[in-house]
Amino acid sequence: MDSRSARKHQAILDAATTVFLDKGYSGTSMDDIARLAAVSKQTVYKHFADKEKLFAEIVLATTDRVDAMVDLVADIPVDADALDENLTRLARQFLTTLTQPRVIQLRRLIIANADAFPELGAAWYEQGFERVLATLAATFRNLTDEGLLKADDAMLAAHHFAGLLLWIPVNRAMFQGAALSGGAAGAGAGAGVAAEIDRLAAAGVRAFLAAYA
Amino acid sequence: MDSRSARKHQAILDAATTVFLDKGYSGTSMDDIARLAAVSKQTVYKHFADKEKLFAEIVLATTDRVDAMVDLVADIPVDADALDENLTRLARQFLTTLTQPRVIQLRRLIIANADAFPELGAAWYEQGFERVLATLAATFRNLTDEGLLKADDAMLAAHHFAGLLLWIPVNRAMFQGAALSGGAAGAGAGAGVAAEIDRLAAAGVRAFLAAYA
Repeated sequence: MDSRSARKHQAILDAATTVFLDKGYSGTSMDDIARLAAVSKQTVYKHFADKEKLFAEIVLATTDRVDAMVDLVADIPVDADALDENLTRLARQFLTTLTQPRVIQLRRLIIANADAFPELGAAWYEQGFERVLATLAATFRNLTDEGLLKADDAMLAAHHFAGLLLWIPVNRAMFQGAALSGGAAGAGAGAGVAAEIDRLAAAGVRAFLAAYA
Repeated sequence: MDSRSARKHQAILDAATTVFLDKGYSGTSMDDIARLAAVSKQTVYKHFADKEKLFAEIVLATTDRVDAMVDLVADIPVDADALDENLTRLARQFLTTLTQPRVIQLRRLIIANADAFPELGAAWYEQGFERVLATLAATFRNLTDEGLLKADDAMLAAHHFAGLLLWIPVNRAMFQGAALSGGAAGAGAGAGVAAEIDRLAAAGVRAFLAAYA
């Protein structure tokens, strides 16, 4: 692909991501995407055979962003004195990332279409969701080898860590369309959100360490 | 409402539930519902002003089913010797109920439409999801008063209990369109599902009691 074509390809992907997140799969047309990308509809079809293929592409592209999360998780130092502190920092980053409105919207978009495109949902689950947890499990295995944790089933421990932290805010956001907040209906923002993240992170890590330290 | 009208009303609700779960909100027409309920479209409109009102009705009707769950949760005996066993039984029932294909489909339907109908999502979250957890919290408070648990923040403990149990199977089912299974892609059934439920229940309760007993 020459650079002009590559630029158009990227512009179409960016536009498609925006439109699919805003309007859902069935509410989105190739016309909407062409308009936002400022290209012709023929150009869209030259790059992507149909709407379904374009949808799969934008969903799986987001697993790239998971890489940053994987690096974060792989990076917990083996340090008994600072274990609590290090896990709490990780917990706060998990919570901050996964409650961003854009991430919640993406999650909702994939779930909404899991019945229509089960293979795509499964691919995202494995390449996104499970990849972070597998890395976290490797880290917990390492900390167990060093005697800092007792996580014999490290993958289970990774899921428990995630479940303790994320069950509340992710469900609240998924059902209410509201990100983390001090209040029940998502009215708070700024300082309220940060305080709630701190509270959930501290409580989740406390329960996790009671079970696994 | 006379009994004939009441029967039609219920037939429309049943048909609407089936069609919305199968086709999603935007894929469903009042015609589909009338056809399945074996009534005229005028009759549908006589009972329900529009599609949105009918959708809200069927979603909120499912919170009735939550009552059975609430009774279950309120019913944990104060018995130190059998606490582990009683919580494990509750955990198995939680897992069995919440991973039923129909429940997963309903969850997906509400989440898919949370942006379009945020008030409906919030109402379901409060009357369904949170109501079970509030009852579980009251039970944990009671067990704490009796010295069997140490759950000073009982609502948080209830969320932790749910997160430990449900994070894995609910996410797997939501993204993959597959219910609980032995294999990663949801291939197993029957005995495999029961064994996986037992494993998740035992592991979740073990971690919970380590943190809160």
